[in-house]
Amino acid sequence: MTMDVTFLGTGSAYPSPHRGASALVLRTEGECWLFDCGEGTQTQLMRSQLKAGRISKVFISHLHGDHLFGLPGLLCTVSLNSNPDPQQSLSRVDIYGPRGLRHFLRVTLGLTGSQLLFPYAVHELEPTGDQSPEEGQLSPEVTADRGPLHPQEQPGRTISLDVSSECYLLFDDQRFVVKAFRLFHRVPSFGFCVQEHHRPGRLKTELLKELGLKPGPVYGRLKAGKAVTLEDGRVVLPSEVLEDPIPGRKVCILGDCSSVLGEKPLMLCHGADILVHEATLANEHREKAQDHGHSTPGMAAAVARACCARRLVLHHFSQRYKPGGAQKEGDKDDVSELKRQAEEALQDSGVDVVLAEDFLTLSVPIRTNA
Amino acid sequence: MTMDVTFLGTGSAYPSPHRGASALVLRTEGECWLFDCGEGTQTQLMRSQLKAGRISKVFISHLHGDHLFGLPGLLCTVSLNSNPDPQQSLSRVDIYGPRGLRHFLRVTLGLTGSQLLFPYAVHELEPTGDQSPEEGQLSPEVTADRGPLHPQEQPGRTISLDVSSECYLLFDDQRFVVKAFRLFHRVPSFGFCVQEHHRPGRLKTELLKELGLKPGPVYGRLKAGKAVTLEDGRVVLPSEVLEDPIPGRKVCILGDCSSVLGEKPLMLCHGADILVHEATLANEHREKAQDHGHSTPGMAAAVARACCARRLVLHHFSQRYKPGGAQKEGDKDDVSELKRQAEEALQDSGVDVVLAEDFLTLSVPIRTNA
Ligand SMILES: [Zn+2]
Ligand SMILES: [Zn+2]
Ligand SMILES: [Zn+2]
Ligand SMILES: [Zn+2]
Repeated sequence: MTMDVTFLGTGSAYPSPHRGASALVLRTEGECWLFDCGEGTQTQLMRSQLKAGRISKVFISHLHGDHLFGLPGLLCTVSLNSNPDPQQSLSRVDIYGPRGLRHFLRVTLGLTGSQLLFPYAVHELEPTGDQSPEEGQLSPEVTADRGPLHPQEQPGRTISLDVSSECYLLFDDQRFVVKAFRLFHRVPSFGFCVQEHHRPGRLKTELLKELGLKPGPVYGRLKAGKAVTLEDGRVVLPSEVLEDPIPGRKVCILGDCSSVLGEKPLMLCHGADILVHEATLANEHREKAQDHGHSTPGMAAAVARACCARRLVLHHFSQRYKPGGAQKEGDKDDVSELKRQAEEALQDSGVDVVLAEDFLTLSVPIRTNA
Repeated sequence: MTMDVTFLGTGSAYPSPHRGASALVLRTEGECWLFDCGEGTQTQLMRSQLKAGRISKVFISHLHGDHLFGLPGLLCTVSLNSNPDPQQSLSRVDIYGPRGLRHFLRVTLGLTGSQLLFPYAVHELEPTGDQSPEEGQLSPEVTADRGPLHPQEQPGRTISLDVSSECYLLFDDQRFVVKAFRLFHRVPSFGFCVQEHHRPGRLKTELLKELGLKPGPVYGRLKAGKAVTLEDGRVVLPSEVLEDPIPGRKVCILGDCSSVLGEKPLMLCHGADILVHEATLANEHREKAQDHGHSTPGMAAAVARACCARRLVLHHFSQRYKPGGAQKEGDKDDVSELKRQAEEALQDSGVDVVLAEDFLTLSVPIRTNA
């Protein structure tokens, strides 16, 4: 049940020796989900404690190169390092991102003759016209995924906005429900909300004893949410003998943006354990940031406050902000100032602020009812 | 007139923290020509002494990802770091490579909304059917550069094999003639021969004095290769009063290959100051190397011997061969063994062997007639 987030690249626009381009990994039970994949992500992965072969899902927030150019190479390297044992078929990698991503991968993998040992599918999110200026929108002609599928490509879904909830349902499995929502940026951009399902509360063992129930299979039935009929005909409902359910954890990762579209995504992200938000430039450059579809610490803080997030993690810093260790005397841009600005905006809100750095890992502890 | 070669990535298959993916720069008079551009090349460039903004030409040997995946990001970053002064129009970047490269760039730059501040043109080399197994060949349908040009794209040439010389003429300008030739690999691959033009020899000043000619514009005319008529009607030919021309330098850079196609490319490369050849695996893995379209040090040495190269530079090492500094006790693969194997094969040939490493710079001194 461990869950953590590792930042592989926290720089904006391009990778540099100081900061990788955008990429982070959400890890649960050894499975790795990659969010964005700028150029050099595979090398950053090799430098980290994570295993590229564990990546089962990839989420691309938007199609800017600093979030995408590492993906074809990453898939090739995962394949090269996977076990080519034909007996053991490798499981599929599911890739989620804006319309156009399927064509991007088909062309880049196809023209380079990149063979993969595992199947993949690209599930495309259909943006709406208000996610970017008009010049940032791709015509259906440009994104059409014509031509034959890659030999390992399986048909992916096309996912449209659910207008009533203002979000996209990516999947809902035994452990997680994952949704996307719309952001405003120079090109259509998305945020992702990973919500762990609630788990049943603990059994009230004292009460069970009073009811005359002894530990055994019956306890399992109740814990699994099923009613039990006693020998004397009485029916015990799970709700009577279970503590409150343990709330699932919630991690929200937003792509580049100057704003979130709609009110409901803020409710979707309500109470997030971790809200990852960009802060490309400091508050004093707010106008420039907005012109480029980016945010300042103050803008990120406003989103975190609206969501009542527990922790706001800032990343996607302009390369002018060097990490602490790489700063030199005379550098006038100080990344810690970004943290200070977010903290100032979050005074008395109870939201913690964290500055991401390449290779920083944050754990997301199990919630308690206390 | 300085000329040097800097290796930015000497690893094969994928970039690693120990070795970058394939890329090297040939620099002459501050102008940089980039040969191959694996993922991470832009970061390697930042780590080097070279300036990305100086790249005026790019040569892609073949379309494998480890030679290409860094190109879209590199172009974007060069653009971001260039002077956006509209008064000062930036000069065009010419890109040479196999058919399919134009489509690759148009799709990757187009889908990512990558705007460039400089124009570019892709000049495609038309491979022949014998450069790879059939499954490595791309159908014209897949490589067709349909759709609108990138806003900064200028139409490029399509260059076919000149059958009589067994090579492709890329360009021939005041200083250099650059040709490509065919290699056999898993996908069609090319080698490049950069030949500096000969420069006129020195004036025989003693002889000129004997002829009664005094220093002045007449000397310039003779040096420029023009005949001069003296007052007494005698004609002085440049060939009479000039030393032998100073031979131009020659640098040959081969892409991935298990062999060179045809005999004439070996003559084209005759006497190369530097011959850059891959050596992916050691001699004892020759069969595996050939199966994958690669070479061993012994195979590279045979090419260097056939060309009478002055220096053979090995690169594109399997990531199993760590650079000297990164080797650990117990590592059984030793890159210096690759050098030893090439030297053994080149005994008494007069060919020097150099192992490339990331960030190694080799200068190519001016030739003398001595
Ligand atoms: Zn970005
Ligand atoms: Zn962006
Ligand atoms: Zn290669
Ligand atoms: Zn190759």
